[in-house]
Amino acid sequence: MRTQVAIIGAGPAGLVLAHLLYNAGIESVILENRSRDYIEARLRAGVLEQGTVELLRQNGVGVRLDREGLRHDGIYLQWPGTRQHLDFLELCGRSVWIYGQTEVVKDLVAARLGAGQPMYFEVSDSAVHDIDTDRPAVTFLDVDGNAQRIQCDLIAGCDGFHGISRSAIPAAASRSWERDYPYGWLGILAQAPPSTDELIYAWHSNGFAMHSMRSPSISRLYFQVSLDETLQDWSDDRIWTELTTRLAHEGWELTTGPVLDKSITPMRSFVSAPMRYGRLFLAGDAAHIVPPTGAKGLNLAVADAKLLADAIIASYGFRGVSPLDAYQETALRRVWRCTHFSWWMTSMLHTEGSDPFARELQLAQLRYLSTSRAAAQSLAENYTGLPFGW
Amino acid sequence: MRTQVAIIGAGPAGLVLAHLLYNAGIESVILENRSRDYIEARLRAGVLEQGTVELLRQNGVGVRLDREGLRHDGIYLQWPGTRQHLDFLELCGRSVWIYGQTEVVKDLVAARLGAGQPMYFEVSDSAVHDIDTDRPAVTFLDVDGNAQRIQCDLIAGCDGFHGISRSAIPAAASRSWERDYPYGWLGILAQAPPSTDELIYAWHSNGFAMHSMRSPSISRLYFQVSLDETLQDWSDDRIWTELTTRLAHEGWELTTGPVLDKSITPMRSFVSAPMRYGRLFLAGDAAHIVPPTGAKGLNLAVADAKLLADAIIASYGFRGVSPLDAYQETALRRVWRCTHFSWWMTSMLHTEGSDPFARELQLAQLRYLSTSRAAAQSLAENYTGLPFGW
Repeated sequence: MRTQVAIIGAGPAGLVLAHLLYNAGIESVILENRSRDYIEARLRAGVLEQGTVELLRQNGVGVRLDREGLRHDGIYLQWPGTRQHLDFLELCGRSVWIYGQTEVVKDLVAARLGAGQPMYFEVSDSAVHDIDTDRPAVTFLDVDGNAQRIQCDLIAGCDGFHGISRSAIPAAASRSWERDYPYGWLGILAQAPPSTDELIYAWHSNGFAMHSMRSPSISRLYFQVSLDETLQDWSDDRIWTELTTRLAHEGWELTTGPVLDKSITPMRSFVSAPMRYGRLFLAGDAAHIVPPTGAKGLNLAVADAKLLADAIIASYGFRGVSPLDAYQETALRRVWRCTHFSWWMTSMLHTEGSDPFARELQLAQLRYLSTSRAAAQSLAENYTGLPFGW
Repeated sequence: MRTQVAIIGAGPAGLVLAHLLYNAGIESVILENRSRDYIEARLRAGVLEQGTVELLRQNGVGVRLDREGLRHDGIYLQWPGTRQHLDFLELCGRSVWIYGQTEVVKDLVAARLGAGQPMYFEVSDSAVHDIDTDRPAVTFLDVDGNAQRIQCDLIAGCDGFHGISRSAIPAAASRSWERDYPYGWLGILAQAPPSTDELIYAWHSNGFAMHSMRSPSISRLYFQVSLDETLQDWSDDRIWTELTTRLAHEGWELTTGPVLDKSITPMRSFVSAPMRYGRLFLAGDAAHIVPPTGAKGLNLAVADAKLLADAIIASYGFRGVSPLDAYQETALRRVWRCTHFSWWMTSMLHTEGSDPFARELQLAQLRYLSTSRAAAQSLAENYTGLPFGW
């Protein structure tokens, strides 16, 4: 089979890329290892930057988001004795939306299939070929075990951190930067109305805790655990007790409820470059991972897809490769901005070791954010998302 | 002898405190271990915050500063390929002044002695007594070896990190926070006109470098060295070669000249609390040390002196101790702000170990400062100095 762009991976990066290309009249084929049910159910991020929302709306996939998404104009930063509201709308004129990644994926899959565009679920043995020529190809086994080959102009590797795309770039041509954090997040989904109107990011001497939400009846909560802790260590009762302690604030109460899901996520910063090698382009988690503090992962994948789509569309228009050359420079600039912001939010809010100097620096930073408009604006503009192409 | 406030130490904190008290009609006596010549000659900081300058002016010790000081409305941040100007005046409406600490000390000593106020140089064996009573005292041997005793209402410990004041607070009542940095600054004073109109703070893969100045004919330059390096390792030629490499920028040249002075300074963050114990009050380096990046040390000492003077003046006016109680809360808030800012500037600009992720984070932060007004404003408001009592 023949297409213009072969897209490996049906996460937000691959789906947004395919959608933007389709709207511009460029053909693509999407391959995905997992089933449709699986990708539409897996629990992931839930905060969309304003730019992400505008992009989805402008491209016709924002209807349900506008109906069901919750617009948040700020967050709360909390440390013992203080719960400080940061008003993003006032600080930088931008907001964020609470709308699960699963919902974004559902909307994009429905749009893709509704338009009759090719998408292969449950593929296996995917491989890329001839990426350093101008006739690259992707091979795979489809759900029925039949060998398939896609001849294409470009391949977009949107297959996540564990996908095959990044490793197709020769090791000698590639470099990566990494930071592992000595803690993870225990996250729960709870049948409980949120106890807050906007997200709470809380510093506590026991460790970070966060109150997020998915809907008016479903809360999403997280707290820092050490890497040697497992879900067996954390009964639902113990989880609620710990969250109640870490999120405690005078005159405020945490509403508890049945725990629908719980999991532990390690925290990692990872950047790989180049994001382009010959006719293979990486986007999203295939090229970089940020820790979840600051909610950049999904948005950064969408930004990559937007920048890559623009580059591809321009390259067909110009009948040349120069816009493609520009992709990774623009994308990497944003990647490092978001990598720095995520590292900074993470480092400010999580306790690490027992260094009392480090703890006082964290508190000094939090107090500063609550008194300096410039500092609060800086957080706000990063959190709500810098413009595409920044 | 009897006075209202006994001040131990004739650095900027002690001298400013004495001057502000004198202007308010409150008597003090200053003790200093060193000679007048020594304290008027030792090379120290050279950047005054706007608030420091205004304070000196308003209190009649700004005449020579206004004549000889150099007003700087910004700094340059540099990293390979970029020299970015930050315009403080435009960003936050404030400036800094280049005027050596030695000059500030000379002006204050001249004012003190000109007003015929008591000041003992070259004292020894100083000790504080009865600080937890309302009749504290200081004893010492004067320059002639005569034992002296000062009965007073309050003692101000302004005698620096190695002074006797801090250790007079019982260990059980005191706590400290500390960070040592695995590098120091090699600083030179050079007979060479500055090659820049404003200070250059440069990130380089070899390590931090900085171009400062003292006058239109004297340059002050610094660069990061590892702690196992000594002055013997650094000939004048090698110093200029390294500075030329680290400060290099296209189309710009570093003017060299005879090296008048060179020294290596280790870098440390240190905060001790309480800053008040009974009738003993700590101000300046006696209570805290910041690394020099960001030029906070002298200014923080002056801010302590201003806050302590205000508290003492109010306590006499109110005939009560409540303003004195407030001193350390206000002072410590500023101390931690400056401690955080100095740590942040230091961590952003110095290379440490060989972690490539950390280096990319530094560059991401520097690029962000050059593109975000909010981020640049945050640096500017800290660098030029937050208001007293912030």
